[in-house]
Amino acid sequence: MEQFDYLITNGTIVTMQSREQVLKGASLGITGDRISFLGDSKNLPTPDAKKVVDAKGGLVLPGLVNGHTHAAMTLFRGLADDLPLMEWLTKYIFPVEKRMDTAFVKTGALLACAEMILSGITTFCDMYLFEEEIAKAAKEAGMRCLVGEVLYDFSSPNYGALEKGFEYTERMIRRWKDDPLVSVAVEPHAVFTCSPELLLKAQQLAQAYQVPMIIHVAETLSEVGQVSEKYGKRPFEHLDSLGLLGPQMIAIHCIHLSPGEIRLVAEKGVKVVTAPESNMKLASGICPVPRLLSEGVVVGLGTDGCASNNNLDLFGEMDSLAKIHKVASMDPTVMDAYTVLRMATVEGARALGMEAVTGSLAPGKKADVIVVDTCKPHLTPMFDPYSQLVYAAKANDVSHSFINGRLVLEERKLLTLDVEEIMKRAREKARDVAGWVLAGC
Amino acid sequence: MEQFDYLITNGTIVTMQSREQVLKGASLGITGDRISFLGDSKNLPTPDAKKVVDAKGGLVLPGLVNGHTHAAMTLFRGLADDLPLMEWLTKYIFPVEKRMDTAFVKTGALLACAEMILSGITTFCDMYLFEEEIAKAAKEAGMRCLVGEVLYDFSSPNYGALEKGFEYTERMIRRWKDDPLVSVAVEPHAVFTCSPELLLKAQQLAQAYQVPMIIHVAETLSEVGQVSEKYGKRPFEHLDSLGLLGPQMIAIHCIHLSPGEIRLVAEKGVKVVTAPESNMKLASGICPVPRLLSEGVVVGLGTDGCASNNNLDLFGEMDSLAKIHKVASMDPTVMDAYTVLRMATVEGARALGMEAVTGSLAPGKKADVIVVDTCKPHLTPMFDPYSQLVYAAKANDVSHSFINGRLVLEERKLLTLDVEEIMKRAREKARDVAGWVLAGC
Repeated sequence: MEQFDYLITNGTIVTMQSREQVLKGASLGITGDRISFLGDSKNLPTPDAKKVVDAKGGLVLPGLVNGHTHAAMTLFRGLADDLPLMEWLTKYIFPVEKRMDTAFVKTGALLACAEMILSGITTFCDMYLFEEEIAKAAKEAGMRCLVGEVLYDFSSPNYGALEKGFEYTERMIRRWKDDPLVSVAVEPHAVFTCSPELLLKAQQLAQAYQVPMIIHVAETLSEVGQVSEKYGKRPFEHLDSLGLLGPQMIAIHCIHLSPGEIRLVAEKGVKVVTAPESNMKLASGICPVPRLLSEGVVVGLGTDGCASNNNLDLFGEMDSLAKIHKVASMDPTVMDAYTVLRMATVEGARALGMEAVTGSLAPGKKADVIVVDTCKPHLTPMFDPYSQLVYAAKANDVSHSFINGRLVLEERKLLTLDVEEIMKRAREKARDVAGWVLAGC
Repeated sequence: MEQFDYLITNGTIVTMQSREQVLKGASLGITGDRISFLGDSKNLPTPDAKKVVDAKGGLVLPGLVNGHTHAAMTLFRGLADDLPLMEWLTKYIFPVEKRMDTAFVKTGALLACAEMILSGITTFCDMYLFEEEIAKAAKEAGMRCLVGEVLYDFSSPNYGALEKGFEYTERMIRRWKDDPLVSVAVEPHAVFTCSPELLLKAQQLAQAYQVPMIIHVAETLSEVGQVSEKYGKRPFEHLDSLGLLGPQMIAIHCIHLSPGEIRLVAEKGVKVVTAPESNMKLASGICPVPRLLSEGVVVGLGTDGCASNNNLDLFGEMDSLAKIHKVASMDPTVMDAYTVLRMATVEGARALGMEAVTGSLAPGKKADVIVVDTCKPHLTPMFDPYSQLVYAAKANDVSHSFINGRLVLEERKLLTLDVEEIMKRAREKARDVAGWVLAGC
């Protein structure tokens, strides 16, 4: 007799193992932290489970992977929109960030985790200040994450001088080393804010502990101009000349790439994460995703932070990703729904080096699973699950979420966090932010 | 003593009368079909209402105006995506449409009305076949609409020969003449599918009854090419040479316009409705909205039909509208959140000639009002209601909706339609569609 901790029944299971592997009216069993069964539960001798979750004909799929965010920036949601980039950064974001502390970041991160779980995200990758608080928040929420403290040439509101930033990062790597949910990366901010020395030291640290190195690259034309002027090379050429390109690198944004840089990224096995809505809203440009994919580059999908999006909604992001590339190329066949959903699941996991753990549904993988309730007018009728998920579903259609085998969302009720209390604290912190802005920060 | 039918209390009222007119902690009174009070209910001697709706600190705003859709195409949601335009039209849409009947269109339209009300839309503008069914569905749902039977040079699955199409349209105009919710327009399909004779006759009919004339214009480069080849003129030049341009015309899409055509549209007072998500998904191009607005053109916002979007979600559409124009112009300041929300409300109503009736909240206007529940992580904190509505809110955050003074949605429960029954019928019709496609239609 098979004993599951959970058995999700009566769903269409979108495994993301291949385009064809969609199992209608099937069940998914969870034992401990892993998926232990996938298929028709009639084939089990006596299917027995401590708890049965009825998917009610909905879609069962891998939890979504948010490849890039700054979680605590939820507290800046809508603070300053529709502004020129430099005004946005220098008048609002940078001054406010100087006033932050651990409690502020923890509150913003808890709010982000609540929003992400409610939106079907089970894994996220983060870069910010006071990153230890993000790790703690993820742990409280029960979310899987890859996090890292931002490193740059300036003094940090968290650790002060750069040397302390490396120490902070190394302590985090050691502290979370064996954690089942939290992993730590080395995260230099960008080529134009990090000296070659900083970048080389970051790589040494990443290699010493065999963790990824995550960096924003080629987000704006201005960045490409600055880097070209300073080093006589475009951003990826500069990184290559320092010997930094390789499969351990996760490069975020990657909008303004020369054909030579696209080849470099492909040849060196650099992973890319694109954040189309942020890139559109800040008018940064469009990442050449179809071209990168055709060159065999692994590309994940991220929401970026709430200061530039303004939500942590990968369903909206998938829809935007498909549509922006169709219109940009004037070709409706590029970025089909299946390809897009892969970027938010199995390819997103691969970009973060987590493909053995999450991103698709298969026996033996960790149980990161969500259920989408499709019994709603805007999801009726359903001819194609991929189309429905990418072009019609909304983040709040997610009814259930399991992370690492733990039920964290049940019928849209968040089981791991006190949402009302978090929203109350977030509003208090937002009042502080408003006060800082009024006072000229 | 003031007696209201409804009093919506404890909300932030986003009036859309001007950018500044946002009333915090205010109330909105409804008497009969009209808004009868707006402001601080403490100022009323004894505010009394048959029913009080507590907005719980949420946002109260005008019901959204969906400026362009083909409602019954909900039944084609996800039927055929990511295909070249001509394959999509000739292999799927056109053959399937030939098999439709009144029951099919009525079912699709009821499903659309359910989805639209649940998404905060209170008014929609429709073009399709068997349009009388759309009017009946809107009436059952309690929605405001402007509808019209599509006219073109071919034989119609509904009325047969063109002459009958004009008769059908005229009968509809007369039948719904004094209806408080349903208005009828004359709707020639497009310049490349309608002869000059058809267009002139359509204008005569529209003028005789003083109703709008609605037409798709300049949606694709192929259309511009065909029209230029046939008439030696671009689409709006051709329409102008026939004397058809004027304030009674509502032109849909308007993507590929020459500078001269933009001036023509502005000078003649033609109204425009843009449908950015459909234009992106079909890779049609980008309507020059910022330029049209700067020339003083009235521009509304529409979802288009579910075959090309794939939902009827103006919240998502607003978000896409802002972002596509920012990245297309490489300027983050264009299409700010307030401007975008205007296009989905007050300017949308103006585009349909309904500005005296709906689109903003003011005493004396018809009570088309929605409440957005903001007590959710993804809408917390809130620095700016416009930003929140355009960049962070989702369609299913709408908790209540009033149309023409009638409560049609209460705590997300649809009061006018049997949603379960409609979804059941929609699934049956979708099985028919799948069968037609399998059988080669």
